Amino acid sequence: MTKYSPIPAPTQSPSTADQEFRYQQLEQQLLAGIQQQRWRLGERLPSIRDLCQQFEASKATVQHALQRLEAQGLLEARPKSGFYVTLRPGAISPPQARNRLEPPQPVNVSQLLLDIMRRSAAFDILPGRPSGDLPPGIVALNRSIGRALRRQRGDDYLYYDDPAGLPALREQLCLHLSRRGCQLPVDQLAITSGCQHALFLALMACCKAGDVVAVESPGFYGLLQLLEQLQLQVIEIPSPTSTGMDPDALEAALARWPIRACIVSPAFSTPGGALMPDAHRQRLLTLAEQHDMAMIEDDIYADTAFATPPDPLKALDQHGRVILCSSFSKSLSRDLRLGWISGGRWHARILHLKLVTQLASSRSLQQGVADFLEDGSFSSHLRRQKYLLREQRDRLLAALRIWPGNHRISTPEGGLAVWLELDQDADTLTLYPQALQAGVVITPGPLFSASGQFHHCLRLSFAHDWTPSRLQALQTLSGLLVP
Amino acid sequence: MTKYSPIPAPTQSPSTADQEFRYQQLEQQLLAGIQQQRWRLGERLPSIRDLCQQFEASKATVQHALQRLEAQGLLEARPKSGFYVTLRPGAISPPQARNRLEPPQPVNVSQLLLDIMRRSAAFDILPGRPSGDLPPGIVALNRSIGRALRRQRGDDYLYYDDPAGLPALREQLCLHLSRRGCQLPVDQLAITSGCQHALFLALMACCKAGDVVAVESPGFYGLLQLLEQLQLQVIEIPSPTSTGMDPDALEAALARWPIRACIVSPAFSTPGGALMPDAHRQRLLTLAEQHDMAMIEDDIYADTAFATPPDPLKALDQHGRVILCSSFSKSLSRDLRLGWISGGRWHARILHLKLVTQLASSRSLQQGVADFLEDGSFSSHLRRQKYLLREQRDRLLAALRIWPGNHRISTPEGGLAVWLELDQDADTLTLYPQALQAGVVITPGPLFSASGQFHHCLRLSFAHDWTPSRLQALQTLSGLLVP
Repeated sequence: MTKYSPIPAPTQSPSTADQEFRYQQLEQQLLAGIQQQRWRLGERLPSIRDLCQQFEASKATVQHALQRLEAQGLLEARPKSGFYVTLRPGAISPPQARNRLEPPQPVNVSQLLLDIMRRSAAFDILPGRPSGDLPPGIVALNRSIGRALRRQRGDDYLYYDDPAGLPALREQLCLHLSRRGCQLPVDQLAITSGCQHALFLALMACCKAGDVVAVESPGFYGLLQLLEQLQLQVIEIPSPTSTGMDPDALEAALARWPIRACIVSPAFSTPGGALMPDAHRQRLLTLAEQHDMAMIEDDIYADTAFATPPDPLKALDQHGRVILCSSFSKSLSRDLRLGWISGGRWHARILHLKLVTQLASSRSLQQGVADFLEDGSFSSHLRRQKYLLREQRDRLLAALRIWPGNHRISTPEGGLAVWLELDQDADTLTLYPQALQAGVVITPGPLFSASGQFHHCLRLSFAHDWTPSRLQALQTLSGLLVP
Repeated sequence: MTKYSPIPAPTQSPSTADQEFRYQQLEQQLLAGIQQQRWRLGERLPSIRDLCQQFEASKATVQHALQRLEAQGLLEARPKSGFYVTLRPGAISPPQARNRLEPPQPVNVSQLLLDIMRRSAAFDILPGRPSGDLPPGIVALNRSIGRALRRQRGDDYLYYDDPAGLPALREQLCLHLSRRGCQLPVDQLAITSGCQHALFLALMACCKAGDVVAVESPGFYGLLQLLEQLQLQVIEIPSPTSTGMDPDALEAALARWPIRACIVSPAFSTPGGALMPDAHRQRLLTLAEQHDMAMIEDDIYADTAFATPPDPLKALDQHGRVILCSSFSKSLSRDLRLGWISGGRWHARILHLKLVTQLASSRSLQQGVADFLEDGSFSSHLRRQKYLLREQRDRLLAALRIWPGNHRISTPEGGLAVWLELDQDADTLTLYPQALQAGVVITPGPLFSASGQFHHCLRLSFAHDWTPSRLQALQTLSGLLVP
């Protein structure tokens, strides 16, 4: 049996430490062990006898601590076997969908995002970048791009690519989408410089300055900033972190305001990772048809699904009303800067806009990625990544569960982040500079709203491996919330 | 001495072939030899005795033909040495700057550019792409990018780059610009997805829909299309192909219309390759200051200078009025899709716009290019390329000189193209589909004007090697012009 070295007490011990009972100390020590992966998800804890010896505690103390952790859903007692590290989603309180339907207004988002982006930390709680080995999928991708560069011939470098993008890559992407019930002809798909670029082209194609656009609330901050720059009015549609944009709320908004376009992310929308039920998808499309509205689908998180990725909204699109936008940034690499768009009835205009604002994309890069898709490397990468992401989500939830206070957490089945609702009097905008000073970067709730809602919320990402320094950062954050 | 195989008569022989004198036939044969690089620029022709033997002609016939070629500036007689293949720019008629100053108007450019771009042929007269070896500069560039990809570490792929771009690349670009008298701090330079993207960001930052923007006429078609999409009004400022935008015309326009921004390309502007005199540059800046106008400098052709590249307008900018835009597309590779922008007083807004429309650029790609600049490979590439471009220009001019009709040609000292003015009754828009049918792609004059001027003009590029098939395409074109 493995012997563990004694686990130090958490550095961020409760303020009542002096009066703590021994079982409470032991509970914290066991939790720290789970967070630091001494015992990983699904593993069996040492026997009660071993724990008594290791922590110099009585059998009653150990049992008391274990039962408390079991009650929190962090351990599971299996008869005649022992205690296993586990996670029962039922033990977590989901965020409450209770935001208001506000009239349309010009967007006015702060410079916070620029600051976060400059720290390269939109999806991390640490400001620096760790070194270490690349995952095998990225090694294969880089090899594939290197090969495509070496295969460049003749005067290739003297030509711009077709503005629509390399046919080989578009074919692979259409094949990839067809596995999700979405049959697209190759000429209905164009390559972009990422999903943000695709969303920009979509909005430029179907809206003009002053138009009203409906978005999820809470929703993607990058989109709010884009709407602000394009001088579009935004209306926030309440979107529970379990089921995504509320069709009733959208219908109520449509009855009151002329909404030109609606941007929605049915598959694991950020920040909460909501998965939209099929019936809601169908209702959104019906509303779009009734109100002559464009549906812009941000599909970027679909390939992070822990199970089979859901079909895109575009698969249900009978009348060319859905503009599908996506990229490899969440499923493969943020550094690739390649995305795609299928613009429905606006596709020709989108192509023209891409041409005049950027001419073309890199042919060699596209060829490298097309090869990576064709030889099955992308599928292998996604299989490995799903498992890792699920584990990283579980470890984040386990760490958050023991935070003090009355918070609620989303439990997504895909995506890269959870949404945390703290006590109503918490203020994550005030927390941001404090956390930064303590070496932790957070993404405060108000960033996900054009009307400054969600001051007591924040997004936490599980995109990264839970190294000891990230776990430490989570503890630091917890300490800042309950001084 | 090298023996030459007999040179066939040109396939596109004059319609008066039957009545041709022997010396005229010989003149055409020698010209064909020069075009096909049997005798390259600077090389000595075979002796008169050898030519007599080779072409079975009398000494008087050979001398007559040689003198005619000398009179056209294609050969130079050097005493006691022989005839050398040469090119005297003075022998060429420059295009006449005589276009009108039209009131501002919304741009409405045709779908022609999209068609040309889809044929990947904006800078070639052949629709296909040749295979063959890459030039050493591009091989080194691709190796450098491959190395940067292999050096990617840790979680790099999980992070977006700083929206401003990789500091290492920005430092190298600032160093590169400092050699042209332009001292820029690194934080005043941002990386873009090419020069077109930089121009788009510049216009978004300093104009709003309906504003009037001054452009060169003839000028870059991609810019006209961009202005159209951004719903900007354009005023065309007459721009001779020798000296570029006319400051007097700009001043006259400023007196009559409120011009928000002026886009100018002082170094080898397309289509004619004009190089703006220093005095004109200074006057443009003074006008910008007097009329509170933004100067957007398209610097993309500067590094194609046959001699030392001229200083950018930005080097004279005292008040942050110049937005410098450029990229590697003309000097290195169209497939790289990396450009840069220095936005003066609009720089912060430009950075924000880049962030919200695209998030970031690829860090690995930027690192590869930064290394390529740092180890001197870019300088070596430019040195080799200058020589080639100059030779390719000379061969194009030599081929155009013998076209029938009364045409005029620009003789740029950099850039990738010449501007050809045909007889006034020529119509290059009608010529486009005819040429396409004959396997030749042209860039018709009206593409370079928002008001449909220059119907009798066309741009011809010397970006490519003059292979026999390209020379044949030129002859085909000549035949279509004089049926």
